[in-house]
Amino acid sequence: MREQMKNMVQAAQNTICQGLEELDGKLFVEDRWERPGGGGGITRVLSQGKVFEKAGVNTSVVYGELPQQALQSMIGDKAKRLQGDLHHFYATGVSLVLHAQNPWVPTVHANYRYFELVGEDNVWWFGGGCDLTPSYLFTEDAIHFHRCYKDICDRHDRSYYPRFKRWCDEYFYLPHRGETRGVGGIFFDNLHHTDQNSLFQFLSDCAQTFLPSYVPIVLRRKDMEFTEQHKRWQRLRHGRYVEFNLVYDRGTTFGLKTGGRTESILMSLPASANWEYNYHPPVGSDEEKLLNVLRNPCDWV
Amino acid sequence: MREQMKNMVQAAQNTICQGLEELDGKLFVEDRWERPGGGGGITRVLSQGKVFEKAGVNTSVVYGELPQQALQSMIGDKAKRLQGDLHHFYATGVSLVLHAQNPWVPTVHANYRYFELVGEDNVWWFGGGCDLTPSYLFTEDAIHFHRCYKDICDRHDRSYYPRFKRWCDEYFYLPHRGETRGVGGIFFDNLHHTDQNSLFQFLSDCAQTFLPSYVPIVLRRKDMEFTEQHKRWQRLRHGRYVEFNLVYDRGTTFGLKTGGRTESILMSLPASANWEYNYHPPVGSDEEKLLNVLRNPCDWV
Repeated sequence: MREQMKNMVQAAQNTICQGLEELDGKLFVEDRWERPGGGGGITRVLSQGKVFEKAGVNTSVVYGELPQQALQSMIGDKAKRLQGDLHHFYATGVSLVLHAQNPWVPTVHANYRYFELVGEDNVWWFGGGCDLTPSYLFTEDAIHFHRCYKDICDRHDRSYYPRFKRWCDEYFYLPHRGETRGVGGIFFDNLHHTDQNSLFQFLSDCAQTFLPSYVPIVLRRKDMEFTEQHKRWQRLRHGRYVEFNLVYDRGTTFGLKTGGRTESILMSLPASANWEYNYHPPVGSDEEKLLNVLRNPCDWV
Repeated sequence: MREQMKNMVQAAQNTICQGLEELDGKLFVEDRWERPGGGGGITRVLSQGKVFEKAGVNTSVVYGELPQQALQSMIGDKAKRLQGDLHHFYATGVSLVLHAQNPWVPTVHANYRYFELVGEDNVWWFGGGCDLTPSYLFTEDAIHFHRCYKDICDRHDRSYYPRFKRWCDEYFYLPHRGETRGVGGIFFDNLHHTDQNSLFQFLSDCAQTFLPSYVPIVLRRKDMEFTEQHKRWQRLRHGRYVEFNLVYDRGTTFGLKTGGRTESILMSLPASANWEYNYHPPVGSDEEKLLNVLRNPCDWV
């Protein structure tokens, strides 16, 4: 599974980058990095393109020794039942965040990952998901996006979409704002309830759904005209994105505090984010319509 | 002490806002807010002024009941020795962050606060400090700023400045960047080692030092010419400021996660912050000179 998953995430990175380059016209710049403790990654960034203000698509394969304490913080008391003080782990995944130039084009995030303790048959899991963060709400875009992931979920297990949709709304939530980060999608973690191959197939199908779930939305929005007020609102929404990622996102805060590669982790942050004291959009405005949905997550399909 | 400290911080807010309004030409806008559990605050913000891009000066007086668990997270096992499950607390302080338009003008932060458990003679402390965060290094500015606080510290206790200067460098540190937030100043917390009145006088003197420590620097820098490249660097440094405040600053993260008033807490964030993947300033540039100092904090006086 280690090799299979690594190949899948790297193939996904290639396919997705190629699709985004065709869309944007500008090419990704690639950085290969090594992790001192074992493994490394491939970071690809497209900055100030025609369509994307900042797009990052990362893969990493990291392995090495995991101290008992770190393991316990990940799997709790289950760690106590394992022999020895040091464990070999292996983790691989693909992670992407795309922020667009045009404020009508939503930000999108996807991540698919696999973790195992090498030599422990029963300690492994899959995680991931994909979620959409518009600055302006287009119901048809949210419906299209959710429908893509519901279709894939349903093909694997009818219980997946309702569970993972709700999990996404709960995870990408800013309590201090009373808002979800965006209109959601799917999110799941620690998946281990069935055989590895079924879960691998599910993640693989999700990763392949990325371009068809997102590109049609970009094509509909990327050439729409906008004003300075629309950009202002987009930058304020980017501020919320920064707040979520730096205050709550477990991958980000865990990565920063445990010596992950900072530039790859913070690749998710927008090129530009603004904060204005106590800004409230006018009643009935398009900006307020978005907030209403973020405060009351709804079913899209 | 509750009343005395409250009067001091509110007087400091008035004096400082008046001084800043004279400097900027634009006036602060005031928001008075109430805290559901008891108390409230006065938030003053000056946005898009001539000198300041975003300036916030807050005071708050909050009181009410503190559950045993919250108390324990603040004072540790000492909490176990106190009677009862609920404690009455009282906290008051002034807090300010000023971000300037001109990239040659440094950002500055100051905070002076007092906490007590009402009815417990021995559970109280003072905290605070003031620190400078330039985008470009001017040695004379850093020296002037540190000299002001060293003078005040020395007048109270010769051990204060060396301790609080080091504490500041240690507190305002971003491990994931290997950088301090700025060129420091003083920082202290949980001060309780001498009588309340001596500590109150010390904080009061520090607060009065704010304008003379900062305004002369602004006057020297505010009319210097700058280019788009200087602004770009300033916005990237603002990004670091956001990273520190949202990931590490205890007041910010504790406040957001315990239901503090979000807009007053996040008043500290700059109007605009940028992130560029893996940006490194050219060797020998002014931008790199700043980084060298942030990576190797030095003595200024």
